[in-house]
Amino acid sequence: MKPTDMAKEGTEMTEETEHMIEKNGAKETEHLVSAGDTKEMRAVILSGFGGLNKLRVTKKAMPEPQEGEVKIRVKACGLNFLDLMVRQGNIDNPPKTPLVPGFECSGIVEAMGRNTKGFEIGDRVMAFVNYNAWAEVVCTPLDYVYNMPDDMTFPEAAAFSMNFVAAYMMLFEVANLREGMSVLVHSAGGGVGQAVAQLCSTIPSVTVFGTASSFKHEAIKDSVTHLFDRNADYVQEVKKISPEGVDIVLDCLSGENTGKGLGLLRPLGTYILYGSSNMVTGETKSFFSLAKSWWQVEKVNPIKLYEENKVIAGFSLLNLLFKQGRCGQVKTVVEKLFSLYNQKKIKPVVDSLWALEEVKEAMQRIHDRGNIGKLILDVEKSPTPLMASDSTETSEAGEEEEEHEGDSDNKERMPFIQ
Amino acid sequence: MKPTDMAKEGTEMTEETEHMIEKNGAKETEHLVSAGDTKEMRAVILSGFGGLNKLRVTKKAMPEPQEGEVKIRVKACGLNFLDLMVRQGNIDNPPKTPLVPGFECSGIVEAMGRNTKGFEIGDRVMAFVNYNAWAEVVCTPLDYVYNMPDDMTFPEAAAFSMNFVAAYMMLFEVANLREGMSVLVHSAGGGVGQAVAQLCSTIPSVTVFGTASSFKHEAIKDSVTHLFDRNADYVQEVKKISPEGVDIVLDCLSGENTGKGLGLLRPLGTYILYGSSNMVTGETKSFFSLAKSWWQVEKVNPIKLYEENKVIAGFSLLNLLFKQGRCGQVKTVVEKLFSLYNQKKIKPVVDSLWALEEVKEAMQRIHDRGNIGKLILDVEKSPTPLMASDSTETSEAGEEEEEHEGDSDNKERMPFIQ
Repeated sequence: MKPTDMAKEGTEMTEETEHMIEKNGAKETEHLVSAGDTKEMRAVILSGFGGLNKLRVTKKAMPEPQEGEVKIRVKACGLNFLDLMVRQGNIDNPPKTPLVPGFECSGIVEAMGRNTKGFEIGDRVMAFVNYNAWAEVVCTPLDYVYNMPDDMTFPEAAAFSMNFVAAYMMLFEVANLREGMSVLVHSAGGGVGQAVAQLCSTIPSVTVFGTASSFKHEAIKDSVTHLFDRNADYVQEVKKISPEGVDIVLDCLSGENTGKGLGLLRPLGTYILYGSSNMVTGETKSFFSLAKSWWQVEKVNPIKLYEENKVIAGFSLLNLLFKQGRCGQVKTVVEKLFSLYNQKKIKPVVDSLWALEEVKEAMQRIHDRGNIGKLILDVEKSPTPLMASDSTETSEAGEEEEEHEGDSDNKERMPFIQ
Repeated sequence: MKPTDMAKEGTEMTEETEHMIEKNGAKETEHLVSAGDTKEMRAVILSGFGGLNKLRVTKKAMPEPQEGEVKIRVKACGLNFLDLMVRQGNIDNPPKTPLVPGFECSGIVEAMGRNTKGFEIGDRVMAFVNYNAWAEVVCTPLDYVYNMPDDMTFPEAAAFSMNFVAAYMMLFEVANLREGMSVLVHSAGGGVGQAVAQLCSTIPSVTVFGTASSFKHEAIKDSVTHLFDRNADYVQEVKKISPEGVDIVLDCLSGENTGKGLGLLRPLGTYILYGSSNMVTGETKSFFSLAKSWWQVEKVNPIKLYEENKVIAGFSLLNLLFKQGRCGQVKTVVEKLFSLYNQKKIKPVVDSLWALEEVKEAMQRIHDRGNIGKLILDVEKSPTPLMASDSTETSEAGEEEEEHEGDSDNKERMPFIQ
């Protein structure tokens, strides 16, 4: 029942996938198409904000590339904690539903619009997408598309883009990581955490403090200098080892951790908020019940920063790419990262591969923080047979589920993943 | 009546100075000492927080170096806007009065305590001091003392230490100034402003936006790419030229400028608050009337920083040195700066030299933002004869002056400086 644990490269569309389309398609007669009809594709659809039941795999019209766009036959997609927040509608200015989630993928160039110099059909590429990644085909402007290193697998590329770019920009462009510094990262076993740990190891004498669930410690202990349980009082634990604090705090939790993180900074240290996963509620509880925490983050007095010589920053790679037009800067970063990859100094850690139809199980796993490294949706993977009907069913009853706070209905829980 | 406009090196104690000691000392009979008594020295005393009248030159017991300290025969001292804030008591945790102000000086090593390896009697040095700089002799721990480059004059060294170290650390350690970036600096004609402009010129294609009083524009226009009047709406002016904003905002004004500065940042840009000169009140008005602005600085929501990809920092060199023990880091910066000085890439701009007895006029000049570059107290300079009695008198009547808001009594104003 476990997902495939190791990443594997899959460069061709398999017979199984086509078979599966038909099989799944049969459940949604209104979308039924013949296998030969190339104008439709499978995609994960979020029908509205809420619980796992809002997700299903369905058919959609296949996009065609506009001018400046590259059409990609998707092989693998990254699943991020942010995707949970999107699903719960727990983000600023949420888009309209229904939508296809997903911000990153890897695959093969299948066609190009006009003015897409630099790419050819058949190129193996990694891409950022402003939603719509979790599908068999995506189109995205060429500024968001990168030719992959030859040795990189598709799951690695999908695990690479957001996490390594974010980790690199935070460590080296927002903060200024140098020899001898110290870094605190939460969720050290997650995709960003592992990217941070690996990038820190490229600089001499960097101390990495990490928090992670205890069961992950054995697996990740070589990548992090000091590991604490995620429920431990990490402020006290860090101070025991380094009474002066740390130079860089990377916080994806938000809430009260902002004050704690600022408090742990050494003079000239930098606290970076790059997510707010504490805002994500339990999968069976109302997602509104905790959403208010987002606004309860303690505000910071600039005068205090002045007196204490501290720096506070926010980092959102998606806003940088899709709202703020900084593709050029990101491209430079991707080139540096590919160089580090080719030198074998960094390598994305893939936790597990999941079929599109298994997206709920995958989300539950990331919600439960069960993963070590990145969860990947492998577009060509067949769902584990017993789970296939569960994960693609549309739970009509679930539509009202969010209204019942403290709902004890466990139908959305995936008991096979702890 | 004007102060000496050009910096000059003065390496020896002159006859005039000794003569002046006696002359001035005669006004304060309780402190009168013979010229041959080496156990006392002249120093500027701040008798209590308030107006200019709280400052006078008097005799004080000469300090002797403790273990790890260097005793310096002072040649020149720097006068900073911060000294006005200290005088007004407008700083966090103000020290007890009476005190000798001043945080930086240059001079000649006259003696050393035990364990002061690296220095010899006769060394020309630049030093940071935690108060007490405005005197003929200071003692300070060797961590705060640097051997000066051979070509550097004493006034240059006194103009160099705080301003260039602060400018360098803000641009290159807090922010991450690189080729092609843009910087906004207020008070571009001041000591820090000129240091920022010069350091920016060491990096290719950096655009510097500066605000300064219009009468300074001709003098500083070569050092700054775009100059605006200090009363202009600089937000609009910057946006006209660079609609996207700037990469780095250096703010010594505080108050509403924090929000304006943050608003002007490009994505991944850094706002640095390094002072709050807007908190300084008029010299004849109550200094309490505006002190509350210090606490009215708008607080910053970290979530907003996250959404906008922005960085906010505070920088206080004095806290870094004297509260936070980062001498080692500062030493590295000073070495880099001396190297740039020796390569003739940077050169401190000295506005004017003033005798200790002219400290009030000097303070009025910096308060009125009349200076271009740094004001220096030249310990060996004789006060301009006509001014000597004014500037050393203790204005008893002035003790209550601060209580009268909007006081139109101009006795503290120096009409000869516009």
